[in-house]
Amino acid sequence: MSEALEFASTSAALLEPYLPPVSSQSTAAKPFVTLTFATSLDSSLSLAPGVRTRLSGPGSKAMTHYLRSRHSAILVGINTMLADDPGLNCRIAGASSQPRPIIIDPRLRWVPKRSDKVLQICRAGQGLAPIVLTGLQLEEWPEDSISILTEHGGKFIYVEPKKTASGGRGRFDWHNILDVLSREGLSSLMVEGGAQIINSLLDSQYHSLVDSVIVTIAPTWLGEGGVVVSPARVHDEQGVPIPAARLSDVKWHPFGEDVVLCGRLYKK
Amino acid sequence: MSEALEFASTSAALLEPYLPPVSSQSTAAKPFVTLTFATSLDSSLSLAPGVRTRLSGPGSKAMTHYLRSRHSAILVGINTMLADDPGLNCRIAGASSQPRPIIIDPRLRWVPKRSDKVLQICRAGQGLAPIVLTGLQLEEWPEDSISILTEHGGKFIYVEPKKTASGGRGRFDWHNILDVLSREGLSSLMVEGGAQIINSLLDSQYHSLVDSVIVTIAPTWLGEGGVVVSPARVHDEQGVPIPAARLSDVKWHPFGEDVVLCGRLYKK
Ligand SMILES: NC(=O)c1ccc[n+]([C@@H]2O[C@H](COP(=O)([O-])OP(=O)(O)OC[C@H]3O[C@@H](n4cnc5c(N)ncnc54)[C@H](OP(=O)(O)O)[C@@H]3O)[C@@H](O)[C@H]2O)c1
Ligand SMILES: NC(=O)c1ccc[n+]([C@@H]2O[C@H](COP(=O)([O-])OP(=O)(O)OC[C@H]3O[C@@H](n4cnc5c(N)ncnc54)[C@H](OP(=O)(O)O)[C@@H]3O)[C@@H](O)[C@H]2O)c1
Repeated sequence: MSEALEFASTSAALLEPYLPPVSSQSTAAKPFVTLTFATSLDSSLSLAPGVRTRLSGPGSKAMTHYLRSRHSAILVGINTMLADDPGLNCRIAGASSQPRPIIIDPRLRWVPKRSDKVLQICRAGQGLAPIVLTGLQLEEWPEDSISILTEHGGKFIYVEPKKTASGGRGRFDWHNILDVLSREGLSSLMVEGGAQIINSLLDSQYHSLVDSVIVTIAPTWLGEGGVVVSPARVHDEQGVPIPAARLSDVKWHPFGEDVVLCGRLYKK
Repeated sequence: MSEALEFASTSAALLEPYLPPVSSQSTAAKPFVTLTFATSLDSSLSLAPGVRTRLSGPGSKAMTHYLRSRHSAILVGINTMLADDPGLNCRIAGASSQPRPIIIDPRLRWVPKRSDKVLQICRAGQGLAPIVLTGLQLEEWPEDSISILTEHGGKFIYVEPKKTASGGRGRFDWHNILDVLSREGLSSLMVEGGAQIINSLLDSQYHSLVDSVIVTIAPTWLGEGGVVVSPARVHDEQGVPIPAARLSDVKWHPFGEDVVLCGRLYKK
């Protein structure tokens, strides 16, 4: 699990305009947010939750780990955590620090175990323990989960869920997520997935929070029924549907059989 | 409606390996088939059927018309015909001939009118009248439709629909569609859309019929509820989902804000 990855400096240079400033001393109120993921032509992240899907080519893995080396935190949704048992560390050769894994788990569906890959990697000194953002209050956090997480250097943090029309517990507001991360001293965040997390961040109300978008597209159609990235519909004042999100400052970089799209979310 | 379009010869050269041979004298049993369309990042062709959706940049229109100049026939589904009232001709500067429009209309939902754009263009000598492929038999073709189509130089052709499990009338088999076109002396076909037509052709049983694929991708998400390209799910012998289609010989060409993907359907 510790084989080091190399990412060509020529490729890194192409991504540079879309990355957070190298200086980790940030005085910005809000972390720099990079949204990054790999999809098929039909905008699927995977064939189904939990079905391992090799989408992008071999160079793509090194790119992901290079991007991780350039962010102080990396974020995934609870379904990704449960389906993939991801390592959530950075294996780029010569990386000077590790990103903090952030897990969005409003109902605490993750029950940390010492055998979870992210915790194994942490004990091996090859990555950090996660911060879990949850909509449950302190008194609802399971004792065992608290102790195993604390032992590894991770923790739970409460985030207030939005009220839903039906009175139930809703999604987090991304402003609140970023506020929490700022208070933790995290100056840059790479949002990795899965689809629900991405669709939630691509909602038009959050476009101004996203500093850059880096999407790898593989020349394959996964077919109907995959885990699909497609944000909620947006309508104009007349109720006519309009595009939900558009990128500006667009660059397309062919990369093996894939293409890497870099852009910024258009701000109206 | 007759403003001529220019397509740069440098761009044309990039597409050349994916186009049918220039010589129109073809002895091939089957027409050369190019599948081409423009999508959003979330694989939508349009916001909704009939909602005009400007996806790709200005250069893309000239590319479409250049591609039309290189094919003897261009094909669309009946929903596209009814929703868009398309011209279905080639407006590239100096085009020496016009492609034959082919409309897939199994139940004859199109009732040709002299005001339809494709027929106006035909009368103006700027394009050909369509051939309509239908699953209805001769005696079911409306008299008025026959005469208006014949007058313009178009016609209906019967194609036998596949039997469906429920005994109803089904889709056409693409082998049959191409057989009809061969008999009409059409040596190359550009399949343009919409989504149902494309998804039907991307079905794994037809991959060997498709000679090349040219997809333009615009850096925008249309959002949920669009007209989506995503072929039917494919499973392996164990019932595990596998990618529905993969391209080989892939080239990505950035083109303005868009990217043009060229490839061939992978043959297993
Ligand atoms: N190709 C790639 O780049 C890539 C990257 C990452 C993941 N993936 C794949 O994606 C799949 C999982 O994706 P997914 O869409 O099923 O799940 P996901 O986005 O990983 O997790 C979804 C869950 O996160 C919580 N959540 C999402 N947005 C939230 C918000 N704004 N506020 C509060 N909670 C929020 C909800 O938890 P509750 O239901 O508990 O409320 C939701 O069910 C896996 O197959 C994984 O392999 C692919
Ligand atoms: N962005 C682009 O490049 C592009 C290109 C073309 C079209 N479009 C857009 O696409 C939208 C329309 O797409 P759509 O998916 O709704 O419709 P479509 O594919 O144009 O037409 C669908 C209809 O064609 C018939 N059909 C399809 N496959 C068939 C087969 N194998 N055998 C027999 N009949 C078949 C069926 O007719 P019956 O229902 O009568 O059986 C079906 O309902 C429009 O909004 C248009 O603007 C975009």
